[in-house]
Amino acid sequence: MTRTPVYLDCDTGIDDALALAYLVAQPNADLRGVGTVSGNTDAAQAARNTLDLLAVLGRGDVPVAVGEHDFLTRAYAGGAPHVHGGNGIGGVRLEPAHRPVEETTAAELLVSLARESPGELRVIAIGPLTNLARALELEPRLPELVASVTVMGGAALAPGNVSPVAEANIANDPEAAQAVIAAGWPVTLVPLDVTMAHLLEEPHRQQLAGSDQPVARLLAEMLGHYFEFYRDVFGRGCSAMHDPLAVAIALGGAVPDTAPLVPVVVDTGEGPGRGQTICDLRGRYRGLADVPGATCRVVLRVGADFPGHLTQALSAPVTAEPAEAAR
Amino acid sequence: MTRTPVYLDCDTGIDDALALAYLVAQPNADLRGVGTVSGNTDAAQAARNTLDLLAVLGRGDVPVAVGEHDFLTRAYAGGAPHVHGGNGIGGVRLEPAHRPVEETTAAELLVSLARESPGELRVIAIGPLTNLARALELEPRLPELVASVTVMGGAALAPGNVSPVAEANIANDPEAAQAVIAAGWPVTLVPLDVTMAHLLEEPHRQQLAGSDQPVARLLAEMLGHYFEFYRDVFGRGCSAMHDPLAVAIALGGAVPDTAPLVPVVVDTGEGPGRGQTICDLRGRYRGLADVPGATCRVVLRVGADFPGHLTQALSAPVTAEPAEAAR
Repeated sequence: MTRTPVYLDCDTGIDDALALAYLVAQPNADLRGVGTVSGNTDAAQAARNTLDLLAVLGRGDVPVAVGEHDFLTRAYAGGAPHVHGGNGIGGVRLEPAHRPVEETTAAELLVSLARESPGELRVIAIGPLTNLARALELEPRLPELVASVTVMGGAALAPGNVSPVAEANIANDPEAAQAVIAAGWPVTLVPLDVTMAHLLEEPHRQQLAGSDQPVARLLAEMLGHYFEFYRDVFGRGCSAMHDPLAVAIALGGAVPDTAPLVPVVVDTGEGPGRGQTICDLRGRYRGLADVPGATCRVVLRVGADFPGHLTQALSAPVTAEPAEAAR
Repeated sequence: MTRTPVYLDCDTGIDDALALAYLVAQPNADLRGVGTVSGNTDAAQAARNTLDLLAVLGRGDVPVAVGEHDFLTRAYAGGAPHVHGGNGIGGVRLEPAHRPVEETTAAELLVSLARESPGELRVIAIGPLTNLARALELEPRLPELVASVTVMGGAALAPGNVSPVAEANIANDPEAAQAVIAAGWPVTLVPLDVTMAHLLEEPHRQQLAGSDQPVARLLAEMLGHYFEFYRDVFGRGCSAMHDPLAVAIALGGAVPDTAPLVPVVVDTGEGPGRGQTICDLRGRYRGLADVPGATCRVVLRVGADFPGHLTQALSAPVTAEPAEAAR
């Protein structure tokens, strides 16, 4: 099996932790590096969480670079401890990895990985898009060097989660999101429209808790915290699967039923719409078709049972080593 | 039957024409006055169309006042002749009514009608909200004097129609819409979410064309023009029923299944979201409940067959005279 080189940009984060574990378990993906950014927690804490998780996953070889602490035009303001806990991963304590982060920034790591495998690297961004925007500044040819960009973020026709119309990743750094979406590379946006439609429920969590895989049990513990936040949203303990769904869509583990290429702009004003991903879906009344010239695909529907697929993938033995992954 | 006093504010307009005819046919409504505003066509042409239609409807007694030609912060820029035809009513020529408009403005007419029936007047606005905003300036106590305000306008979770997120009535004068929505009176917003879900189809139009009511035949002719515009939107000749649905909801002829009271603000910035009605529907994942303190009800779903109801009402003999209407 061909293994696709992947760069992951994240703000680890409970659902980022699930996404990372899912990504490492995919036999068709070769995780070449991880960059962190402030969002759910700060970029440095996100890097610690990532290093520690990678150790549990048997992937102490994957480079981790700390990215931007602050956003392009605003300072990081403290993340979402009410959602992800004070340490970003629901207060769960992981064994410290005792491994240093890279000396480069996340943006530099992304650019160097793109140059190593021109036209092949898949970029998956599940936090604010600050590092990607910085990388575009560093290397204006980046869009030609990268195969695709998959972003968890935004809300098309669904309500937002940090404002009536804005989703957290995009709202944290609308200027960066606008730069990334306008860069001309093929972007797939995985917005709340789909991530809020695929819920991990208590039986899924129990399946993880009962797994013989240590990482699955740790994720179940983190999810206990995450479920409490979502109790106010859904009226029961469960959770959306934002970041893992984006990874699965990037790697083919989840296949969108509806995902048109349409014009998308981010509201970077200071008004009540700040951070909204304005997707032009006016064509929907005659059936959504790809709009010529558009470079951003907006995922509106995934039909399959993604939470079931995810739980299964995370409960199974981790295929950590490149050799094993070729099975 | 108690007849509710009604003030209609409109930019007549093909669907305004249907709304006016429907309104006049309702035995529970007492149309006390009509104000016009620029929108589909200019305020003066809208008044001529209204006078001529009222003559056909046997209601030459209803006062018609010309309202604002320009919007609060921008000049009127020519309306929507590609949708509503050069004269606003699909090029259909009506017999000129030879009756003058009122000497007052639409805002003055609204204020005086509200003072005549304190607490009873229902305001139905199916054009840009400029006249209502002017009336609020003229009489700050207007919210206490009026029973309710029903507005055709906006888009909550549906796409817009003049931008990806903005609907024409609100987009024409976002500042006026914001003033009206924030005034504290009970506003019911009838957005594209419902108006694009209730379509008049060719068989409905044929039923109107075959009616023995002259106004129904004229409306069928106007709809022939309107259907051509919607061919690009829906892929067939048909049309949304924006304005008549708002009138029906105001008068009880259509009853919303889902219409929560939620915070609503209008984007009055200069960015890509200008004119969007930002409705806070984040509660929808646990079932939409009224939000305490909110004064704007957002209609999201009407279950009944509204186009059938409308066609029936417009094909039947018009109950024009107050005496008849008491039957």
